[in-house]
Amino acid sequence: MNFTTLIGLLGAACTTGSFLPQVIKTLKTGDTKSISLLMYCILDFGVVLWLVYGFIVGDLPLIVANIITFSFVSIVLVVKIRNG
Amino acid sequence: MNFTTLIGLLGAACTTGSFLPQVIKTLKTGDTKSISLLMYCILDFGVVLWLVYGFIVGDLPLIVANIITFSFVSIVLVVKIRNG
Repeated sequence: MNFTTLIGLLGAACTTGSFLPQVIKTLKTGDTKSISLLMYCILDFGVVLWLVYGFIVGDLPLIVANIITFSFVSIVLVVKIRNG
Repeated sequence: MNFTTLIGLLGAACTTGSFLPQVIKTLKTGDTKSISLLMYCILDFGVVLWLVYGFIVGDLPLIVANIITFSFVSIVLVVKIRNG
């Protein structure tokens, strides 16, 4: 693997993995007051589009990253809808 | 532009644009209590890596999208650091 690919993979790992601390915090506290509902709706929709794109072009890393991101974002979204 | 490219661009527009409602909410209320500091730290770092990757491979859409995302994420991060 070359340097450029490593930078891209590390970027993908960070942007996808970054949502995990938010998921943990949200599940622990149940507090979603300062979180934007609209952000998580648009974000989840965008991630689904990325997923569709990944399936069409047959890009496995894109598919895997977006399935994980979709799961994380959806958990926060569900708690936000329930708790407001 | 074909259908696949359109799906990808729409996905990028959503995932980047999704942070705008959070920026507006955060600047309006100043409340960041339920937002994860760690999420925004890792996310901002990941976006910088994507930006570096975009510059190396010379991908203009990737560069533009990540500059916008970096700005949005950084605003929320700064308010989170200040207000806790």
